Amino acid sequence: MKPISILGSTGSIGTQTLDVVRKTKDSLHIKALTAGTNFRLMERQAREFQPELVVMMDENAARQLKISLADTGIKISWGIEGLIEAAVIPETDTVVTAVSGRIGLEPTLAALKQGKNIALANKETLVAAGELVMRTAAETNAEIIPVDSEHSAIFQCLNGKREEAANITLTASGGPFLNWTREELRQATAEKALKHPNWKMGAKITIDSATMMNKGLEVIEAHWLFGFSYEEIKVLIHPQSIVHSFVEFNDASILAQMGEPDMRHPIQYALSYPQRWTSAYSRLNLAGKTLTFSEPDHKMFPFLEFAYTCGKKGGTLPAVMNAANEVCVHAFLKNRIKYFDLFNLVEKVCLEHQAQKADQLAVILDTDLWARERSEELICNMIK
Amino acid sequence: MKPISILGSTGSIGTQTLDVVRKTKDSLHIKALTAGTNFRLMERQAREFQPELVVMMDENAARQLKISLADTGIKISWGIEGLIEAAVIPETDTVVTAVSGRIGLEPTLAALKQGKNIALANKETLVAAGELVMRTAAETNAEIIPVDSEHSAIFQCLNGKREEAANITLTASGGPFLNWTREELRQATAEKALKHPNWKMGAKITIDSATMMNKGLEVIEAHWLFGFSYEEIKVLIHPQSIVHSFVEFNDASILAQMGEPDMRHPIQYALSYPQRWTSAYSRLNLAGKTLTFSEPDHKMFPFLEFAYTCGKKGGTLPAVMNAANEVCVHAFLKNRIKYFDLFNLVEKVCLEHQAQKADQLAVILDTDLWARERSEELICNMIK
Repeated sequence: MKPISILGSTGSIGTQTLDVVRKTKDSLHIKALTAGTNFRLMERQAREFQPELVVMMDENAARQLKISLADTGIKISWGIEGLIEAAVIPETDTVVTAVSGRIGLEPTLAALKQGKNIALANKETLVAAGELVMRTAAETNAEIIPVDSEHSAIFQCLNGKREEAANITLTASGGPFLNWTREELRQATAEKALKHPNWKMGAKITIDSATMMNKGLEVIEAHWLFGFSYEEIKVLIHPQSIVHSFVEFNDASILAQMGEPDMRHPIQYALSYPQRWTSAYSRLNLAGKTLTFSEPDHKMFPFLEFAYTCGKKGGTLPAVMNAANEVCVHAFLKNRIKYFDLFNLVEKVCLEHQAQKADQLAVILDTDLWARERSEELICNMIK
Repeated sequence: MKPISILGSTGSIGTQTLDVVRKTKDSLHIKALTAGTNFRLMERQAREFQPELVVMMDENAARQLKISLADTGIKISWGIEGLIEAAVIPETDTVVTAVSGRIGLEPTLAALKQGKNIALANKETLVAAGELVMRTAAETNAEIIPVDSEHSAIFQCLNGKREEAANITLTASGGPFLNWTREELRQATAEKALKHPNWKMGAKITIDSATMMNKGLEVIEAHWLFGFSYEEIKVLIHPQSIVHSFVEFNDASILAQMGEPDMRHPIQYALSYPQRWTSAYSRLNLAGKTLTFSEPDHKMFPFLEFAYTCGKKGGTLPAVMNAANEVCVHAFLKNRIKYFDLFNLVEKVCLEHQAQKADQLAVILDTDLWARERSEELICNMIK
């Protein structure tokens, strides 16, 4: 049994990871679980999976949980210290970082320093601190196995043969706003953006998918994970979400990974790797299917090209873009700002920033904090 | 430089193989070339690639060639003995068997016995003698690397992980007769069948593609090459010929190989394996492409299901099916028989045959000869 810990077990990726654990009962064993505030769901998860340690980011939630789990021997901690404690708990082979946003960075680095493998569902970690994270992994020979369906696809197709690959293409469903007019996009609401056609995901990533910032973050993530230059990373719209991404090798041969759009597939792969376990989830039948591919529309979805620009400039700029985007998406979810404001605000914050080297955690965290505060300020000014 | 020999260098695969040699000049070196009767083209090939040995199946052609190559030091042989001599010529690493039909069997076995790797473009070899050929390869640790685009795709996607694969799907363009009515098929001529929509190939394989016997032969070939049961080998119609075939793994993940339909890609892969060399041939751009997949129509194309049946019964039956088909295709090419006669004649010969074990070369060759004679007899009776 492979011992694993899940950071963010009550979220979308977290609950799906636990479903994989449930379906592959003799293969995986839970050492630690963490969540933000949802102590009721955490209680049920803790009783079912019997981890040694449970962590709530929120101190009050941790207190509540302590009372409700008083009859068990499970240790309960809280806050970022607790999250790091869960990330480095002894004997754990793989840490699933399924928390949303930059909160995943410190525990991921802590786990990598201990040589633990990371099943990475938190792309913001690599966007904000790709250089630092990859260097830390290399130092301890820890493996980072991507959970994002696109990066899992590239990982499977590459199969360690980076030097034989010419380029990679990330596919994008195009999200709920594909083929909308400028006028329609102007009126787009969070409610409409949350109706993703193919994937069942959390709110933040679903908005990012609607704006295509998600694909931009994935381009930067792929750059760090696989070592391709930005010129070697392409994006194609593929509304059916069946081809999850592909690699073109030097000899013009393309290997593509396909499957039903169900996150439990790449989650299971990340946990079974280097093996493959029989899956309990739906299998793809291509008979009767039509697959289409087209170039993205950069005018309607400016975030994608902007992410390439930030990625190429590098340093702390992707961290700023990521932090500003996170704040603006939350504002959009609360209907405080509109679709095109998202782009204008993130661009403004990035333009104000003087990029520095991003090889120190402190610098990255400071930059992140500045970008968040500045974004919030701009949103408030705009609303006034 | 990898030393290679080509059996059948003046045919479609042979000339394309020489084009690959030309484009990857410092990587491949020709030791021997063989052909049937086309001594004029062989003279040009011999002068360009300077092999040690040149073989013509036809003795008169060999005599002509001897005169025209008298100023060179190139040795010239003929007949099946010459073909075998070319297959086992010392120092050769890989023998490309690009001859058409069962003539490829003996030289392939001879090369495998010497531990030479085979780049296999002659699927009839595995259809007629799969058990014998695979056992011989296993005895000397020789590798058989498929040249057929479908099998090359499976080979690349499997990447040696047979035990993790659940099933494979061979794609089929559907050929020039896709979606024809029964009445249209009844009137189908060789001329129309030779207009293949996607692939540039020899006449025999193009007719097999039109009847879908080609896919049937490929199913049997895949069974022997990769060790899948017939239940684990599927066929899907994919008219665009872009997805060349795919593997479904135990965890429901599908890896597919894609590319432009150009045989020089799988030829180069078979010769560069286990490496990949930069390709001089056209690269696939998926933007704007639409890919469709559908189940084959077994009523209009009965050969496919029939090949499954023959493959499952096994023994010498696939050799009979293959030999009868070869004779009937040649009769169809000469407009001696019609489309549905092809199936009726091959089925009749197979039904007359009492299958035996196919583990001895003599038994296979005897069976093959009987099937050819019997097919010719039936064609003559029918025409009278």
